[in-house]
Amino acid sequence: MAKELKQLTKRSENYSQWFNDLVTKADLAEQSAVRGCMVIKPYGYAIWEKMQHQLDVMFKETGAQNAYFPMLIPKSFFSREAEHVEGFAKECAVVTHYRLRTNEDKTGIEVDPAAKLEEELIIRPTSETIIWNTYKNWIQSYRDLPLMCNQWCNVMRWEMRTRPFLRTSEFLWQEGHTAHATKEEAEEEAKKMLHVYADFAEKWMAVPVVQGVKSETERFAGALNTYTIEAMMQDGKALQSGTSHFLGQNFAKAFDVTFLNKENKPEYVWATSWGVSTRLIGALIMTHSDDNGLVLPPKLAPIQVVIVPITKNAEQLQAISEKLAPVISQLRAAGISVKYDDADNKRPGFKFADYELKGVPVRLVMGGRDLEENTIEIMRRDTLEKETRSFDGIVEYVEQLLEDIQANIYKKALDFRNAHIYECDNYEEFKERIKDGGFFLCHWDGTAETEAKIKEETQATIRCVPFMFEQTPGVDMVSGKPATQRVLIARSY
Amino acid sequence: MAKELKQLTKRSENYSQWFNDLVTKADLAEQSAVRGCMVIKPYGYAIWEKMQHQLDVMFKETGAQNAYFPMLIPKSFFSREAEHVEGFAKECAVVTHYRLRTNEDKTGIEVDPAAKLEEELIIRPTSETIIWNTYKNWIQSYRDLPLMCNQWCNVMRWEMRTRPFLRTSEFLWQEGHTAHATKEEAEEEAKKMLHVYADFAEKWMAVPVVQGVKSETERFAGALNTYTIEAMMQDGKALQSGTSHFLGQNFAKAFDVTFLNKENKPEYVWATSWGVSTRLIGALIMTHSDDNGLVLPPKLAPIQVVIVPITKNAEQLQAISEKLAPVISQLRAAGISVKYDDADNKRPGFKFADYELKGVPVRLVMGGRDLEENTIEIMRRDTLEKETRSFDGIVEYVEQLLEDIQANIYKKALDFRNAHIYECDNYEEFKERIKDGGFFLCHWDGTAETEAKIKEETQATIRCVPFMFEQTPGVDMVSGKPATQRVLIARSY
Repeated sequence: MAKELKQLTKRSENYSQWFNDLVTKADLAEQSAVRGCMVIKPYGYAIWEKMQHQLDVMFKETGAQNAYFPMLIPKSFFSREAEHVEGFAKECAVVTHYRLRTNEDKTGIEVDPAAKLEEELIIRPTSETIIWNTYKNWIQSYRDLPLMCNQWCNVMRWEMRTRPFLRTSEFLWQEGHTAHATKEEAEEEAKKMLHVYADFAEKWMAVPVVQGVKSETERFAGALNTYTIEAMMQDGKALQSGTSHFLGQNFAKAFDVTFLNKENKPEYVWATSWGVSTRLIGALIMTHSDDNGLVLPPKLAPIQVVIVPITKNAEQLQAISEKLAPVISQLRAAGISVKYDDADNKRPGFKFADYELKGVPVRLVMGGRDLEENTIEIMRRDTLEKETRSFDGIVEYVEQLLEDIQANIYKKALDFRNAHIYECDNYEEFKERIKDGGFFLCHWDGTAETEAKIKEETQATIRCVPFMFEQTPGVDMVSGKPATQRVLIARSY
Repeated sequence: MAKELKQLTKRSENYSQWFNDLVTKADLAEQSAVRGCMVIKPYGYAIWEKMQHQLDVMFKETGAQNAYFPMLIPKSFFSREAEHVEGFAKECAVVTHYRLRTNEDKTGIEVDPAAKLEEELIIRPTSETIIWNTYKNWIQSYRDLPLMCNQWCNVMRWEMRTRPFLRTSEFLWQEGHTAHATKEEAEEEAKKMLHVYADFAEKWMAVPVVQGVKSETERFAGALNTYTIEAMMQDGKALQSGTSHFLGQNFAKAFDVTFLNKENKPEYVWATSWGVSTRLIGALIMTHSDDNGLVLPPKLAPIQVVIVPITKNAEQLQAISEKLAPVISQLRAAGISVKYDDADNKRPGFKFADYELKGVPVRLVMGGRDLEENTIEIMRRDTLEKETRSFDGIVEYVEQLLEDIQANIYKKALDFRNAHIYECDNYEEFKERIKDGGFFLCHWDGTAETEAKIKEETQATIRCVPFMFEQTPGVDMVSGKPATQRVLIARSY
């Protein structure tokens, strides 16, 4: 794919444009011919595959199993849960026909009116309805519980304003759907999965997150409680990065799913659902990357180490390749993905810029002098620091360096986040300061009115009631009414 | 999931019903509320995951990369390649609207007529059109070639008669789409991927296949050549299990995808596409399974070894569990998936029948006497042979046994297939014998007329011109005209 390495827009100039540039130039994704739908290019998809792999392991450790449910949902299923349909009806793709035909003047094809469906089908925006309709047949007794299924799939929400990874009409995600005998168990499951997401975000993506519970207004349509992880982007905005819902008995009642308890009495089943999507790639990009391109956490980087030989002639190339071969083998044996780039149709400078743009965590360069002096040049992408060191022990050095980079970018993001969380008790002050971004901890009186006023006047929303801060009662900064807790308020993607 | 182990229909009584019973009772899949769409249950999905994992490794070894393209395809893209639209227009799900609204009397929801799409969107039945529209931007020069992408996704073909795994309206598959500078390279790629499929079928699924090329009538819509692997089911019918297409320059021309060759002259790109689907699970079931249930090849079995203790009391259970613990660890360390089933709410007889139904390749049973005598009972699912042997060396014994079972079921299927391949030179004889199933090698004059006549009179079709048999010229058994080769004719799924 021929491509010029053009300058990215600088973050300080236009953060939003920088993001769009980066997504395109680093070959992560591009707009498709279909409104709001993106093509995830191989390099972007490789990051998603690494995410999927690790999340899948973590889900299975909790006892969840993968399954697959139909993509199309009968319209009538949708109406069964009142809040759910309310939440999704306005943005769903509707299948009405099942055949095309050649048009009369044979210049093209058209929908065949004779092939109209009796009942319209909706492309899943999420699968609670079709899954709970299925669970009805799978659950009879308490012995069938808990039932914990996850599916990796595509979903469709007809969004009006879309941005690659952050908000697209079609996106890839996983959705877990669990059924439990008791309220307590279901609530525990919803929280457990939130912790799994937080763990993944922090240990794998190196993205620190605030865990908390959504306000009623911001809940998932049909949930009694929505738990969330909120990450801070470099512009101080929040990105909701994963949610886990306690659904109560809403879907069990809507689809009549009961079980016989130990006393042989029928009870409605308790439910949760939880999901993360390709949006996580957006979070990854906007947390770590810089004006030179992507900065990827080593644990999720498709290429962890790139090695570039710089040589004058074929003979020297052969000597360097031979010297590097055992190092490449040893790194690969240690599970590290290595690219050895000895292509001769691109200059080293071009290669360096390209791998920086792509966020490869470690770059090794060996030239003629290195060969003579038994040295190698090593650059880390996160700090762009370069050093020339002895070739001996390079494998162990690189292994350690990858760990250091993972830890360093997490610490950097955490420091940034912590430096931009503020307590604020004055609404006028808040209105000024929110313009510069950041997370604000403010007392809230718990009413939807206050919440709506803040949103209208500042475009900021209550992201969650955070778990991580000690809660003290106080006075709502907007209404002046008593408040039991501080909530996290921010502008968001 | 409470479930009674009811008798399966016997294969000899009704092969088709046996298959349907088995899919349901072994918890592989079930019909959903949506016409022609199935739910793939966790046990069935676990087989698909194992298939996916291995195929993905094999694809990547050929240099293919994964990516993701939009599920919805603009109607106009469809019409660009004339044969392609002809092949798929009659069975595609069409999205016409993007919103629902509450109906007038507020009793339900309906399609919002104001939210009609300007251009209808088709749920992909296959992705050549959207992918070649994308490739146009990715390919400029011969340096961008070959381009080899694969995607794992769902597709939709509105089939009138559906059967779980074999033919469903929505199914899961992978589709590889490659672009090449020369005709020769593209043809080689199409054949290479056919060999990958054949390798996977034979070495992993233990399903012998006939590789060959389709007749013009049976080609993929838009292809110049379709290569196929055809497997023989136990009723002697053929199951097309994977196809690889040489698309020539058809899609490049339809979407105007050219590249500058080394002489800096524009040329149209050469294409292939190749796919296998959840249909492979159908092939797996119908090749190996028996009247007691599934027989799974160890390499794809979700549970490879089940261990059941039979004990009188808690003390004995503890002693047996302690004795078995190191064996379980060692088997798992060797990469073998082991289930230790000490649940006390089901009788051993029930467990045995259930694991037979589920096709677990090896079952180990240890009771009180085994504990005393340092023995263990071992049963292999493929032959149902049972023996009691020394507990010493059981890990190595099981490892070897799993390999033996894999080899044995392949040999059994191969022997069956080979015993049911016939040369036949007399059409009257053919018409009689085809009723009992089997693969027939017959001379064919190469005309669509003869092909249609055979299909109409016998419901059998030309599966392929096979590569594996030496070709000798002869006389077409139907028309009496000269024929250059024998083709493989069979009834099929």
